[in-house]
Amino acid sequence: MTDSAREAILVVGAGDATGAAIARRFAREGYIACVARRSADKLTPLVNRIEADGGQARAFACDARREEDIQALFATIEQDVGPLAAVIFNIGANVWFPITETTERVYRKVWEMAALAGFLTGREAARVMLPRQRGTIIFTGATASLRGRAHFAAFSGAKFALRALAQSMARELGPQGIHVAHPIIDGAIDTAFIRDTFPDLYNKKAQDGILNPEHIADTYWQIHCQPRDCWVHELDLRPWQETF
Amino acid sequence: MTDSAREAILVVGAGDATGAAIARRFAREGYIACVARRSADKLTPLVNRIEADGGQARAFACDARREEDIQALFATIEQDVGPLAAVIFNIGANVWFPITETTERVYRKVWEMAALAGFLTGREAARVMLPRQRGTIIFTGATASLRGRAHFAAFSGAKFALRALAQSMARELGPQGIHVAHPIIDGAIDTAFIRDTFPDLYNKKAQDGILNPEHIADTYWQIHCQPRDCWVHELDLRPWQETF
Amino acid sequence: MTDSAREAILVVGAGDATGAAIARRFAREGYIACVARRSADKLTPLVNRIEADGGQARAFACDARREEDIQALFATIEQDVGPLAAVIFNIGANVWFPITETTERVYRKVWEMAALAGFLTGREAARVMLPRQRGTIIFTGATASLRGRAHFAAFSGAKFALRALAQSMARELGPQGIHVAHPIIDGAIDTAFIRDTFPDLYNKKAQDGILNPEHIADTYWQIHCQPRDCWVHELDLRPWQETF
Amino acid sequence: MTDSAREAILVVGAGDATGAAIARRFAREGYIACVARRSADKLTPLVNRIEADGGQARAFACDARREEDIQALFATIEQDVGPLAAVIFNIGANVWFPITETTERVYRKVWEMAALAGFLTGREAARVMLPRQRGTIIFTGATASLRGRAHFAAFSGAKFALRALAQSMARELGPQGIHVAHPIIDGAIDTAFIRDTFPDLYNKKAQDGILNPEHIADTYWQIHCQPRDCWVHELDLRPWQETF
Repeated sequence: MTDSAREAILVVGAGDATGAAIARRFAREGYIACVARRSADKLTPLVNRIEADGGQARAFACDARREEDIQALFATIEQDVGPLAAVIFNIGANVWFPITETTERVYRKVWEMAALAGFLTGREAARVMLPRQRGTIIFTGATASLRGRAHFAAFSGAKFALRALAQSMARELGPQGIHVAHPIIDGAIDTAFIRDTFPDLYNKKAQDGILNPEHIADTYWQIHCQPRDCWVHELDLRPWQETF
Repeated sequence: MTDSAREAILVVGAGDATGAAIARRFAREGYIACVARRSADKLTPLVNRIEADGGQARAFACDARREEDIQALFATIEQDVGPLAAVIFNIGANVWFPITETTERVYRKVWEMAALAGFLTGREAARVMLPRQRGTIIFTGATASLRGRAHFAAFSGAKFALRALAQSMARELGPQGIHVAHPIIDGAIDTAFIRDTFPDLYNKKAQDGILNPEHIADTYWQIHCQPRDCWVHELDLRPWQETF
Repeated sequence: MTDSAREAILVVGAGDATGAAIARRFAREGYIACVARRSADKLTPLVNRIEADGGQARAFACDARREEDIQALFATIEQDVGPLAAVIFNIGANVWFPITETTERVYRKVWEMAALAGFLTGREAARVMLPRQRGTIIFTGATASLRGRAHFAAFSGAKFALRALAQSMARELGPQGIHVAHPIIDGAIDTAFIRDTFPDLYNKKAQDGILNPEHIADTYWQIHCQPRDCWVHELDLRPWQETF
Repeated sequence: MTDSAREAILVVGAGDATGAAIARRFAREGYIACVARRSADKLTPLVNRIEADGGQARAFACDARREEDIQALFATIEQDVGPLAAVIFNIGANVWFPITETTERVYRKVWEMAALAGFLTGREAARVMLPRQRGTIIFTGATASLRGRAHFAAFSGAKFALRALAQSMARELGPQGIHVAHPIIDGAIDTAFIRDTFPDLYNKKAQDGILNPEHIADTYWQIHCQPRDCWVHELDLRPWQETF
C-alpha cells in the first residue's frame, strides 16, 4: 500500500497499552515507530520490545500540551528519522466529577491533554504532510466523544472538541490527500488501569468482553492502508457484549 | 409559571443583539435582568432601554474566562439583587482559519471564551440553584456545535465542548430540578457583525432570511416557562430559507 | 401570528391523549379542529368537549394508511371546512418483539401506520399548502426515532423513516414557506395505555415524571406560531427525571 | 479467523458492482458464495468469474421482498450448500422525486426493496445463526441513511429504516455472538449506473474520486474477520475528494 522504507510513524500518547500496540503494529510493517510521552524513560520497554521483534523504534520525551515540545518533536523526526507517513494521537484523560466539584484546573487540564494536544499534534502533522499531499492522521475517540453524561463535563468536553478537530481536518485535508480518521473506542480496553480500577469489568476479559489493544492496532493499520477512493472517517469499536 | 418577584436572571455575553434581546425579554416579564460583558460601560444603552421599558436591569463588568470574576458576579447578584431563576450563557467566538494557520493562541482563546467561560458560568449557576432544586440554564449553540467544517477546528472545538457541557449538566441536574437547554442557532442573526461582514447575507433580512434576536429571545423565554414534565433539551432554530 | 378566522387544522391520529390535547389547544385559539381516526364514533367525546369549551371541531373516519382515505379527507376539509393552516401527524405504533419473533405482517403494519400514513398525510398537506406558500406540518417523533434498540426493529424502523420524511420535507418545503417540525417525545405520556401497561411508570405522575399531553400541545402551538425567520425543526421533550 | 471450509456466505442484492465484488472477495477466501437477485440468469457471468478464479459460487433467483422467497433461499443454502457464516444485504433503491410527485407506489416499493427485504434477510440470518452463536450480518448504508434531503423522502425513509434495523439487531444479537455492521457508503461507486447517469461524476474515477467496489469488498471482509472483542458497528466510507 505504501512504501514504508525509511518512513516513520508517530504515536503521541504511547504510554498506554493501545498506543504501544499501535506502535508495534506499524513497526512490524517496516515503519520506524516514533513514540512520545511525558517521560521518555518509561518508553524503554516498548522500544526494546519492538527492537527484539526486529523493528525500529525511537522514544521521545514530549509534553504534548506544549507547542514548542510538539514542534521540536516533529522537526527532529522529519530531520533525523524519516518522513512521517502516519501520526496517531492517543492521549486520554478519563476523569469524572459532579459538575459542582469540577475545578477550573481539572476542566482546563483535561482539555489541554485531550484536545489542545490533539490540535497541536494534528496541525504539525498537517504541516509536514501537506507538501507531500499524503499521510494518515488518526485521533482516538471514546464513548464520551458522542454523548455527554452526568459527571463527564470535563472529559466529554475535551473528547467532543477532539472530534470537532478530526471532522474539520478531514474536510479540509482529505481533498489534499491526507486521510484523517476518528475511531471511537466504545468499551473498556485491556489495560492496567481497567484491571486495577474496575476488577469486575476486567473479569470480562475471559469472554473477550474487553478490547484487546492488538486488535485496535490492527484496525488502525487497516485504516492507514485504505486506498484513497475508500477512506473511513469515523467508526466505532466495541466488544460483542457491550451494550450501546 | 414562576414567581418572578424579586428574582434575577443573568445573561453572560450580553454584548450582542441576541444577549440584549434575551435580557429585555426576561425583564419585560418582571425579572431583574443582570447583564455581563467584559466592559460594563458598553451595557449602559441596554440598561437604559430596559429601564425605559419599565424593567429593571443591572450591568456587570466580567471577564467570563476568569473564575474569580464569575464567582464574584454570582455572589454579588445573589446577595445584592436576588436569587437567580435563569442563567443564559451566550458568548460566541466565531473565527475561521486553515488548520495550519490556526495559532495555539487562537485555539486556546476561542475555547476559553466559548467553552471554559460556559463551564464556569454553568457550574456557578448549578451551585446557587441546586439548594433551591430549581432554575433554568441555557447555553447558546450554533451550527458549528454539530459538525466540524474546513477551517473551523477552533470554533467547532469550542462549540462541541459547550454542547458536551450542556448534555452532561442536563443529565446530572435535570433530576435535581434544574432545566438545562441547548438551543442551536443555525443561521445568520440580525447583528451589526453580519450587516458589516456579510452584506449579501444581510440583504436577506427583507424576506425574513436572517434570525431576529427578539424571536430567539421569545424561544428562550418559552424554554424557561416549560413545566418540568415537558422540558426541551436541544432544539434548532433557523430561518425558513436556510439550507441544512 | 396567524389569521385563524375560518381556518382549519387537522390532527391525524387524534385517538390518544396527545392528539386530543393538540386539537383542543388549536381549537381554543380559534381554528376549526378536524380530528381523524379509524373510527369516527370514538371521537365524539373529543368533539363535544371542544364545543363545550366554545370551539369548533369536526370528526372524520379515516384509515390513514389508505391513500384514497387521506385524499378524500383533505378534499373534504378544504372544500367544506376551511383552508388547512396546520396538519399534525400523530399516529404511534409502539410494539416490541425479538427480531426472530417479528412477523412480516407486524413489520409491515407498523411501518404502514407510523411511516406510510405519515407520508400520505404530509404529501397531501404539502399539496394544499404549497399554492398558499404557508402552513405548518408537524410529525410526532419518539425516542425510537433516534436510536435502534433490542426488540425495536419494527417500531424504530417506522419512526426512523418518519424522521427521514420530516427532514426531507423540511429541506424541500421550508424555502417555499411551509414549516415542517419533528418534536421527539422522549418519555412516557400520561395516557390510559401507560397507566394500564406500566403502572410503576405511571406512578411517577405525582412528581411530574410523565409528560402531560396539554404541555406537549402548548409546545406544538408555539411551533405553529413561530415567525418564519426563527423556525425550529427538531426538538426533544422529556420529563425532568428522565434519564437520556 | 474463521474456519471457512464448507461454509457459505450470502449476498442479497448481488446484481450490482458492489455485491459482485463482495461475493468474489469472500469466495477468494474459501467461502461458497451464494448470490441472489431477482433474475438468476443475470448472475451467470459473476458465477463464471468466481469459478474461473478458483472459487465456488451458487446463483439463486429471489425476490427479496417476498417472505417465502427469502425463507426458501435460506433453507436451500443451509441444507444444500453449507452453514452461513456471513450474510450481506446490499439492495439499493435510489430514486428522487419532489414530495408532491412521490406516488404511494414508489414510496412503498422503495421501502419494500431497501427496508422490508433487509428485515426479511436479517431475520432469517438471525434464525440460522443464533443456534450457532456466531455469524456476521452486514447491511449496506448510504448518505441517505443519515440525513433526509429535498426529494429524498422515499429513499431516505427506506435507508433510515434499514439503519434502525441494523442498530436494533446489533444491540439484540451482539451479546449472542452475532456481529451486525452497517457501513455507510458516502459517495459515488464505480458502477454502470453512475457511468451512464452522471458522466461528470464518473470522470472523477481517474483521480480515485469514486469508490472502487473491490475496496468496499475489502472492508466488508475485514469487518467479517474482526475478533469479537473489537467489533465495528457503523463506519463511513468515501473517496478522498468527497465533501461531507
